[in-house]
Amino acid sequence: MAAPEQSALIYIDVINDFQFNQGKKLLDQTYRILPSMMNLKQYAHAHEIPIIYINDHYASWRADLQQIYQHCLNKGNKKLLEAIRPDEGDYFLIKPKHSGFYQSSLQSLLYELGVKRLILSGIAGNICVLFTANDAYMREYELWVPENATASNDPNDNQYALTMMENVLKADVSPI
Amino acid sequence: MAAPEQSALIYIDVINDFQFNQGKKLLDQTYRILPSMMNLKQYAHAHEIPIIYINDHYASWRADLQQIYQHCLNKGNKKLLEAIRPDEGDYFLIKPKHSGFYQSSLQSLLYELGVKRLILSGIAGNICVLFTANDAYMREYELWVPENATASNDPNDNQYALTMMENVLKADVSPI
Amino acid sequence: MAAPEQSALIYIDVINDFQFNQGKKLLDQTYRILPSMMNLKQYAHAHEIPIIYINDHYASWRADLQQIYQHCLNKGNKKLLEAIRPDEGDYFLIKPKHSGFYQSSLQSLLYELGVKRLILSGIAGNICVLFTANDAYMREYELWVPENATASNDPNDNQYALTMMENVLKADVSPI
Amino acid sequence: MAAPEQSALIYIDVINDFQFNQGKKLLDQTYRILPSMMNLKQYAHAHEIPIIYINDHYASWRADLQQIYQHCLNKGNKKLLEAIRPDEGDYFLIKPKHSGFYQSSLQSLLYELGVKRLILSGIAGNICVLFTANDAYMREYELWVPENATASNDPNDNQYALTMMENVLKADVSPI
Repeated sequence: MAAPEQSALIYIDVINDFQFNQGKKLLDQTYRILPSMMNLKQYAHAHEIPIIYINDHYASWRADLQQIYQHCLNKGNKKLLEAIRPDEGDYFLIKPKHSGFYQSSLQSLLYELGVKRLILSGIAGNICVLFTANDAYMREYELWVPENATASNDPNDNQYALTMMENVLKADVSPI
Repeated sequence: MAAPEQSALIYIDVINDFQFNQGKKLLDQTYRILPSMMNLKQYAHAHEIPIIYINDHYASWRADLQQIYQHCLNKGNKKLLEAIRPDEGDYFLIKPKHSGFYQSSLQSLLYELGVKRLILSGIAGNICVLFTANDAYMREYELWVPENATASNDPNDNQYALTMMENVLKADVSPI
Repeated sequence: MAAPEQSALIYIDVINDFQFNQGKKLLDQTYRILPSMMNLKQYAHAHEIPIIYINDHYASWRADLQQIYQHCLNKGNKKLLEAIRPDEGDYFLIKPKHSGFYQSSLQSLLYELGVKRLILSGIAGNICVLFTANDAYMREYELWVPENATASNDPNDNQYALTMMENVLKADVSPI
Repeated sequence: MAAPEQSALIYIDVINDFQFNQGKKLLDQTYRILPSMMNLKQYAHAHEIPIIYINDHYASWRADLQQIYQHCLNKGNKKLLEAIRPDEGDYFLIKPKHSGFYQSSLQSLLYELGVKRLILSGIAGNICVLFTANDAYMREYELWVPENATASNDPNDNQYALTMMENVLKADVSPI
């Protein structure tokens, strides 16, 4: 297994407005994993692992972190976004579709950083996290997807996605 | 030929710090084409053509227009950047390498907009513009690369790149 | 919905040696769907829909249909391979990984053919078919994945993959 | 610089029918570089460097080496094709467009082989070789493009392409 220093922590779609069908459900589930997401950030800092946000652009097609953040911020998600927002020095990339690798700069960044192992966290576990994990597996990255650091609208769907990542993609899904 | 409304104006690396070998030369050449670049913007507005900036991220790997703009701004390029900066409603994407298509979201945006024809403008004509034009040609976009709206360090290299785009890529290189 | 003539029938990994863990199980499941796969071929011929094979290359990295076919052929799969092999005029492409779109020429071919809707059939339903369906969805193809024309080692996994394709990817999974 | 054993020899479009505008000119130029191309093959064998053909499919969209070879073979190119054809154990991939990397499996193969440095040879020097070199440079491969092992319709265009590869792409262009 690659050494921890060759890892990167990938936060998927955590800067999120939750303004969609069942968005409130997903917001609730995301608050439940917020402590684990924060633990991952500490883990990353302790091991000097780079942190990469790969995020929807909310139909703006603008690589503009501040605009995206302001667009997403609302009363319901304020505590979440303030806790999880990128710090100076964290990387932040946009993606137009579900997978973090599709039509984004993610793979170039991982190559430059020499990353061999991805730690995936974020939402939704059975959609964007799973699509990103699939693409990571085809690109031969090792995967750690802590089971307590992804959330989906429905916990059963989240569990099934984790099972697929473990069985098909050989992901480690042990919790943080 | 596709109707003008299926076109997009692509500005390549125009938010630029010019802090590299021969950067002063390229800055001078870029000021020479600034009037043509501004004419293209008017042309785009008149024909309701979307304007897309595809730009270096200056080693930040952050989709953060304001940070990139502030990083680039300096005494030498101030007039240029203030004139050519993206307006609200313009698209702005980052690219990690020379071609605007490589590891960026450009093609997804063009697909969503229904674009069939690209108008390329920017710098450097014999590097990032040419690489972008090559990739556009392989993706079967029609090309208009106005000869007075690209600049390179050396005008001869710029001219040769235009000749290649005309001969190999079937680009229209007539001036704006 | 796109007209049938803008569809393509995609056979995924059907030229297969089944020489892997649980390969015998998958072979048995594949014989069960062979009648439906053949019905799809008739459907394609009746509607003048192009047929595209996208297939593993069995570590050869050679775009060499005859070599791949001979490599795969064995006593157990002989009837299957003889029934399902590409006819003259069918397309045949190789893929190095699970998704038919990843590092293959598939999207270029679909673009040239003007295809908007994919009919997916083949194996394994919960791996290569699902990965291909995910990538097709991100590229905005409509999907028909007849539930009786994909097979997986385990019928439960096959069913779950179909459910995901229906719910997340908006695929039509009605049988042929 | 990467050790020779991390190199790969890439033959670009050498299985060629030359049935296009100025094809006879290119065929003549290609016969002129045939001795150098054969020297490269010896060099590859001596250093245990893998040999990869990346080739047009002549509108067949079939990964079918034998069909492509038979399609291309004619009286004019017979000696060339018989000399340069892939041996057993050589890799052979198809590409739909000019660059060997675009919509092909080339990068996956290079990754699996652990290749860091490409030796490019083939035709046409100012089109498919140059496009492939551009894409290789963006993917951070070192390049050796022996000046006596590429050919273009017009020797001046070939020379200019070599100059671009040397100046922009940092390619070594010293002859074999």
